[in-house]
Amino acid sequence: MRVVAIIPAAGAGRRMGSAVEKQFLHLRGIPILAHTLRVFDKSPEIDGIVLVVAPQQRLALESEVLGPYPCEKLLRVVDGGPERQDSVANGLRATPPECDLVVVHDGVRPLVSIELLEAVVEAAHHYGAAIAAIPAGDTVKQAESKKVVATLERETIWLAQTPQVFRANLLRLAYEKAARGQTIVTDDAALVERIGAPVHLVLGSPENIKVTTPFDLVLAEAILTGREGQRA
Amino acid sequence: MRVVAIIPAAGAGRRMGSAVEKQFLHLRGIPILAHTLRVFDKSPEIDGIVLVVAPQQRLALESEVLGPYPCEKLLRVVDGGPERQDSVANGLRATPPECDLVVVHDGVRPLVSIELLEAVVEAAHHYGAAIAAIPAGDTVKQAESKKVVATLERETIWLAQTPQVFRANLLRLAYEKAARGQTIVTDDAALVERIGAPVHLVLGSPENIKVTTPFDLVLAEAILTGREGQRA
Repeated sequence: MRVVAIIPAAGAGRRMGSAVEKQFLHLRGIPILAHTLRVFDKSPEIDGIVLVVAPQQRLALESEVLGPYPCEKLLRVVDGGPERQDSVANGLRATPPECDLVVVHDGVRPLVSIELLEAVVEAAHHYGAAIAAIPAGDTVKQAESKKVVATLERETIWLAQTPQVFRANLLRLAYEKAARGQTIVTDDAALVERIGAPVHLVLGSPENIKVTTPFDLVLAEAILTGREGQRA
Repeated sequence: MRVVAIIPAAGAGRRMGSAVEKQFLHLRGIPILAHTLRVFDKSPEIDGIVLVVAPQQRLALESEVLGPYPCEKLLRVVDGGPERQDSVANGLRATPPECDLVVVHDGVRPLVSIELLEAVVEAAHHYGAAIAAIPAGDTVKQAESKKVVATLERETIWLAQTPQVFRANLLRLAYEKAARGQTIVTDDAALVERIGAPVHLVLGSPENIKVTTPFDLVLAEAILTGREGQRA
């Protein structure tokens, strides 16, 4: 059991404005989370999967995702916490102690390619910590109360995605320190950066979107349509 | 002539990988630039339009855009320069001296709504300088040579769009100073910031994309399909 993926999918989907949690919404007739799990199931680089969902979503998970779309590499399903970070921490505790690398990937990034997943895993083998990210295409402003404070040097700015992959011991140490300091961050790499470990960037893809709004759902459908057109 | 828009559309479209410049590519059978011009023609807040194109694109502009889709408010067509900033500077010299506000809007942002355009114009009337921008949805990293240097505080980070609207005198002053200093920037607001004037942010829209890659073209089609669905 060398490479284990933690897939947090415990979000409430408040921004989707839907009664159904976003990870259960359908893309091409298949739940978003099932799309995501399939990529990990297919990649030979991945040995096991720990899935994190909210306790009240376990029934829906079984009936809508794992029943119709079985996940062969699934090791455990664990409960999510109040913040994404709590969910990943719970997932991390459920990873086998002997695993070398831990992959963290958002349950609602269903369009990640196997190639990108494997490129980030490979970079993490080499550097210890690696994340998918794309260069900022727009001019980036730093602002306070809707007034611009600075225009950042665009060449240095990257938008982080997942997969984010870490040596297991490094991520465990980062989470231990975070738990003591009550640090709240928006991605796992930030915790690893805080303990001084270098994090390497791997060029992600604009198609690897996080589906969190109705707009993203339209976009995701369009990307899948484009991919089918390419294969046809 | 109170509010004049400069529409730079002189880009070569290298990222599109197409022989046709991106502003002439079609969305729903209509050139991207014609979509953009139509929004400005329709808005009662806009009194005139200065269009900036590369000299070698003038023929295509007439035959593919202005012929089939006449632009009623068009004041002048001027030549673009080597950088976007040179193109806007040329457009600025062609604006009537008596205009109060100058709107700068990318020719390849065809999906801007009239509501957003007018909201930015109104904010510029009030504050002197205002731009459309959206909050960063992803975690934002600062990096050097593909190593993360810092995770920025996401709440303070905005991605700039256009329209960007300025009091005419303010933008002229900003461009004069820039010409002397040979400053190169990626948006007009940055030049205004450099002379110390406050720039106000107006909440833009994720739909207000800049169409620069084949992926963006797929996305733009999907957005238009979504809009038609809403109207139906």
